[in-house]
Amino acid sequence: MSRFLCDSMKALAPYTPGEQPTEKKYIKLNTNESPFPPTERAVKAAEEAAKSLQLYPELDGGKLRSAIAESLGVDRDSVIVTNGSDEVLNLCFKAFCSPKSPAAFADITYGFYSVFAGYNCVPYEIIPLKDDFTLDVNDYIGIDKTVFIANPNAPTGICLPVSEIEKVVSGNPHNVVVIDEAYIDFGGESCVGLVKKYPNLIVTQTFSKSRSMAGARLGFGVACPELINDLYRLVYSTNPYNLSRLNMAAGLAAVEDADYTRRNCAEIASTRESFSRELKALGFEVLPSLANFVFTRKEGISGHELYLRLKAEGILVRHFDSPRINDWLRITIGSREDMDTLVEKLRLITENLL
Amino acid sequence: MSRFLCDSMKALAPYTPGEQPTEKKYIKLNTNESPFPPTERAVKAAEEAAKSLQLYPELDGGKLRSAIAESLGVDRDSVIVTNGSDEVLNLCFKAFCSPKSPAAFADITYGFYSVFAGYNCVPYEIIPLKDDFTLDVNDYIGIDKTVFIANPNAPTGICLPVSEIEKVVSGNPHNVVVIDEAYIDFGGESCVGLVKKYPNLIVTQTFSKSRSMAGARLGFGVACPELINDLYRLVYSTNPYNLSRLNMAAGLAAVEDADYTRRNCAEIASTRESFSRELKALGFEVLPSLANFVFTRKEGISGHELYLRLKAEGILVRHFDSPRINDWLRITIGSREDMDTLVEKLRLITENLL
Repeated sequence: MSRFLCDSMKALAPYTPGEQPTEKKYIKLNTNESPFPPTERAVKAAEEAAKSLQLYPELDGGKLRSAIAESLGVDRDSVIVTNGSDEVLNLCFKAFCSPKSPAAFADITYGFYSVFAGYNCVPYEIIPLKDDFTLDVNDYIGIDKTVFIANPNAPTGICLPVSEIEKVVSGNPHNVVVIDEAYIDFGGESCVGLVKKYPNLIVTQTFSKSRSMAGARLGFGVACPELINDLYRLVYSTNPYNLSRLNMAAGLAAVEDADYTRRNCAEIASTRESFSRELKALGFEVLPSLANFVFTRKEGISGHELYLRLKAEGILVRHFDSPRINDWLRITIGSREDMDTLVEKLRLITENLL
Repeated sequence: MSRFLCDSMKALAPYTPGEQPTEKKYIKLNTNESPFPPTERAVKAAEEAAKSLQLYPELDGGKLRSAIAESLGVDRDSVIVTNGSDEVLNLCFKAFCSPKSPAAFADITYGFYSVFAGYNCVPYEIIPLKDDFTLDVNDYIGIDKTVFIANPNAPTGICLPVSEIEKVVSGNPHNVVVIDEAYIDFGGESCVGLVKKYPNLIVTQTFSKSRSMAGARLGFGVACPELINDLYRLVYSTNPYNLSRLNMAAGLAAVEDADYTRRNCAEIASTRESFSRELKALGFEVLPSLANFVFTRKEGISGHELYLRLKAEGILVRHFDSPRINDWLRITIGSREDMDTLVEKLRLITENLL
């Protein structure tokens, strides 16, 4: 750190993304990327868009924003499109939290929430999940804080029904509730339908997982127009052209090819179920996941050791060196073939044959 | 604004980008876009990159960062690549300014500096340019503030020599000096060469102007590795994947086709000089510009009126409704053909024939 860096920034504990090694080819099951390429329409759209890169992109999300709104059955005014869902989440911390108005989120959840809080100098309360890693919505009612809930949760994959989410939203009328639905398309039920009813709800989603576009950095938020206005106010105070022509064109192609996304999500959900059964047959404990990953552990072998042994075998999974989940691994659902390879390696490891 | 928005964000005065009308086709000389398309290599590169959009982009600027560093003759550690130069400028405010360490910049300069300051809750000192819109570097020496200077300045186009910039940098050893070189490639001399000598200097540039890539949202900063580290610390605390695969691939193609950029910049500089002569022949005052725009006024007709009359004729230029520059217009240098059309319209307007 230089001597010029502000004290508040010196205190940051930045986020650690899943490793992205370049030295060797791995079966990559560590960052929840899709095993499927993006829709072919996106390739054509990116090529076309590149031809007019000398011009600034459309402001305010342009056609992509309208297409997302239409696909969700909400008005354009109810949507903000951002540079990954990380951008909209960060904006929520900046807009709706302050020293007088802290944030609240679970102990085991998306690791970036506490980082966003630090970046925006916002205090936060950590609310522990129950022993079985489920979230008790009663812990979030009337707490007078801006609530962030990932649903399905990461890295557990556990998903709450809309009726439970609604209790949190209706139970905090004086605070914003942010529901991070990065993984909702793999079997969970979205609570986007609640935004018309509740002026304090923001739902965020991403193109990174179900739409096979982690590389395009596209996310969005859905809320009542007043909250969306607040967030665009911040965009216009930092980077009004927050999305490139290329990213918006590729994203629009993905929205227009919703069938492709649906088929891929169904395939991933099906692979997740068979993979979970195979893990259990090998003696693994597997949390019930509605995401494109599973959270699992095996008695007798530490999460770190298993992570290292798989890495040695050319397979990357995610291990978090954190309290409560040290023994667990988060494993992305890849192609059937990759999951078969993984199951075979796990069988050999657990039978001490590797 | 919703009742949930923080007080500090309620007080923001967001930036107003140049208008981007969609209802009618204009000759667009209002946002300093290039009249040239991007290099053809960028189109091919974007298409290729789109095929693997399911994977996250490279972290830390990837190959693009190395290529930029090589093209500038500095180490990779001395470069940060960002989502437009707006991102790196905003990060500089966040990293190096605070209530205890205010910012300082000119009264007539890039309008976003005061917005970034507001967004980051940073106080700032406005230092007026001289009557002729030149900047006196003595005003910036020993002021104990983080200095932001656009060079060439916007919207004036006036450029300081490196020797003058160096006085500011060496005269503020205890503060960071940010030199915003968005428009440096059209005739000015970059001070990137000074970063090896001064640990307090950050130079920012963009792909939006000279590289015909306003639509790709690519910018970068150059500084000593310690300062770059500070800035990446912030990136990892907000959006580690700040650049998409598509944007990085297109940008890399542009860096690799430096000849194309040089030829375009030379052509624009040449058009700027002939256009300036023609303006003067019509009785316009024109500031000496080294950017891809000129700042001009005509006695007897207000800037706003001239802006409106040109708009009625299908030509968009930029008028700032601000003290001191109310009578002036900023006109982007477009194609020779577009500038000829503009000159003819201006001739008719000034001769009261339109």
